[in-house]
Amino acid sequence: MTDLSARDAAVEAFRLRLDQSKPRVEAMLDTLLAPTPSGGNDRRGRLLDAMRYSVLLGGKRLRPFLLIETARALGVGDDGPLRAACAVELVHCYSLVHDDLPAMDDDDLRRGRPTTHRAFDEATAILAGDALLTLAFEVMADAPTHPDGSVRAALCAGLARASGHTGMAGGQMLDISAETATTPLERSEIARMQAMKTGALLQFSVEAGAMIASASSPRRDAFSQYGAAIGAAFQIADDLLDAESDAAALGKRAGKDGERNKATLVSILGANGARRELDRLVAEAQLAITEARLGEEGRFLCFAAKYVASRQN
Amino acid sequence: MTDLSARDAAVEAFRLRLDQSKPRVEAMLDTLLAPTPSGGNDRRGRLLDAMRYSVLLGGKRLRPFLLIETARALGVGDDGPLRAACAVELVHCYSLVHDDLPAMDDDDLRRGRPTTHRAFDEATAILAGDALLTLAFEVMADAPTHPDGSVRAALCAGLARASGHTGMAGGQMLDISAETATTPLERSEIARMQAMKTGALLQFSVEAGAMIASASSPRRDAFSQYGAAIGAAFQIADDLLDAESDAAALGKRAGKDGERNKATLVSILGANGARRELDRLVAEAQLAITEARLGEEGRFLCFAAKYVASRQN
Repeated sequence: MTDLSARDAAVEAFRLRLDQSKPRVEAMLDTLLAPTPSGGNDRRGRLLDAMRYSVLLGGKRLRPFLLIETARALGVGDDGPLRAACAVELVHCYSLVHDDLPAMDDDDLRRGRPTTHRAFDEATAILAGDALLTLAFEVMADAPTHPDGSVRAALCAGLARASGHTGMAGGQMLDISAETATTPLERSEIARMQAMKTGALLQFSVEAGAMIASASSPRRDAFSQYGAAIGAAFQIADDLLDAESDAAALGKRAGKDGERNKATLVSILGANGARRELDRLVAEAQLAITEARLGEEGRFLCFAAKYVASRQN
Repeated sequence: MTDLSARDAAVEAFRLRLDQSKPRVEAMLDTLLAPTPSGGNDRRGRLLDAMRYSVLLGGKRLRPFLLIETARALGVGDDGPLRAACAVELVHCYSLVHDDLPAMDDDDLRRGRPTTHRAFDEATAILAGDALLTLAFEVMADAPTHPDGSVRAALCAGLARASGHTGMAGGQMLDISAETATTPLERSEIARMQAMKTGALLQFSVEAGAMIASASSPRRDAFSQYGAAIGAAFQIADDLLDAESDAAALGKRAGKDGERNKATLVSILGANGARRELDRLVAEAQLAITEARLGEEGRFLCFAAKYVASRQN
């Protein structure tokens, strides 16, 4: 068996497991977004409709998977990690809704469907994003997520740090500012911007799984490193996809980074250089999983690193 | 002393105490929004600048006051309530930034200054609002807010419920939808919309103070009733102000409710009817404080009810 086919087999095994985990994640998201009994009001229904539209119509559910799989590899498999995973996914979905807005990336398509502000309107999309972000913290903070209130509070704080001005929102600001800046971003600045914009929430997904499972401090460090490498690899793969795909395969507008002269590592390193960087990050992620000493239980997290680097959409 | 001058004296005493509490609240907000040591990056600074602009340039700080004063009346006066109070204020400020956006209320002025999207730009204002909302949960969840993790988690959950689709964001959606609806809102619908849009966060401010101070269940119920009455009174006073003030006194565009044919209780009850409703709510709030049996310690919360009903801006 060549290296390539071993990689293909790992990616296939991962894809299967990711697909298997999706229905459980989506059933919980559906429950968390269910209309309240007292909410039988058409006017109020519009916001919930927009929230459901933004969350329930597709997505790889990679972040939930990473959280659930990390907790599972450490021996915790109940609904607690599932709820925390959904909280992270709600934050991810809110960020897509707001990033797609006319004032931001101005996108009409997302996963092959109209973006939320096109399907509803701009005000509704802003509010739906706000409400999804808010709901994420409600889900994370509520008792069924973890028996220990201190862990729930730590999960809330960690989710906030990964999502706010020191994380995702800060990264999006850097990304937007760079588009109109006179001096282009340097490589280190791009890496930092992407670590904030995409990496922080992916990394937190893994860290949250370890927090829920009360992992030891060395293991938590290893998971942090793994999450950081996965996050960086994910963004490079995304930029490669954008540079090389067409809209039909991508389900959203393609080639838009180049169109906007957006700085990515692909534009700095070239496609081949970016692929080498991807390989390095995959090796780094797998080394970190080895250091976490999960044995056989860690194999899907190893596969995840390969999957992230080789994904097609 | 007539009833009127007793009311004036109470309002004056309250105003003095509110002014006294402001510097402490604003110093903590300033600390929470301080640039991080590693954040010496001009590009990243823009988001924090917009967040600081949105939070630090004025405001009555009524919600923080209610939280701090409730906790104080119950014997807790350290930095915990102050931090929780700032978390609530961050949510309030985020909601103003997003409500002012062109797609929402489209306002150019707030507290006599350009709104955040006018002072910066729309994308920055959206992100600043997002990041303020996120920061609120980080502040609430972090250890210095309360020694008991379960209380911090409960505060996060309560803040989320008051702010999200079942609270403030849901109320704003109802309010916006009503502007373009063919059938006007009925009185009960307006009351519900306002209870969600404005009332929920004011009510939570009071409830959070009681949670932090581990108040007994009957006292917590009394504080809930007080908070709900204060919230409803606040909104009616706001609508009366909008109907009767000019922009110079208000620091924002006045008369805009009538301009947009926005349904308010003032438009349904008339100004005199609305004032009678205000008096009823003040009495209800004061009765609830009496039921909480705070004695002399509760007097500023009693005064707060009068202040809310009689405020001029």
